[in-house]
Amino acid sequence: MDPLSITLSALADPTRRAILARLAGGERSVKDLAQPFAMSLPAVSKHLKVLEKAKLIERSREAQWRPCKLAPEPLKDVSSWLEQYRQHWEQRLDRLDQYLKDIQHKKDNSDGK
Amino acid sequence: MDPLSITLSALADPTRRAILARLAGGERSVKDLAQPFAMSLPAVSKHLKVLEKAKLIERSREAQWRPCKLAPEPLKDVSSWLEQYRQHWEQRLDRLDQYLKDIQHKKDNSDGK
Repeated sequence: MDPLSITLSALADPTRRAILARLAGGERSVKDLAQPFAMSLPAVSKHLKVLEKAKLIERSREAQWRPCKLAPEPLKDVSSWLEQYRQHWEQRLDRLDQYLKDIQHKKDNSDGK
Repeated sequence: MDPLSITLSALADPTRRAILARLAGGERSVKDLAQPFAMSLPAVSKHLKVLEKAKLIERSREAQWRPCKLAPEPLKDVSSWLEQYRQHWEQRLDRLDQYLKDIQHKKDNSDGK
């Protein structure tokens, strides 16, 4: 699989996204990460392996408790890929904005303003 | 599955991303989309169904050839979700930048500049 597909596939899970959100606050142990999810350690470890394979997290080899750390580079790559579509969603919002202005204008006219 | 997971999962495929990139240039028929991929029509239709389910494309019901159109709103949602991590990847780049400046500074000093 190509790197972008690996990243997107790893992100396509609410638990893995929640793990990343927690790591955004600083590094944590696996035990610490497992706590709010009412999930077994092996289940969390499985999710961490997917995130590690996608290079979205790094595990320290220094400390004995091997803390997990957010690795944001693949997220930057997703953001860069998305940029080519920005004009498309902004155009849609502009058109909606114009449409709302148009109906307000028609309403004002019919109200005799 | 939650909407964001459905979007990310639909995007986690290079053929589906290539289809979106082509639709960014304007609406196209299924036959037209299939052409550059050397793929059967049923194979392309399967990808289009995934994209349609994720609301990333819309298929017109007006014209008989039912053209496909890019629907960018879910991409905007991915972009919004990513924003919370922007400071993380930018900080990393800042630190790399500082590191490169530091070693250049040391080199200049040892060169007697």
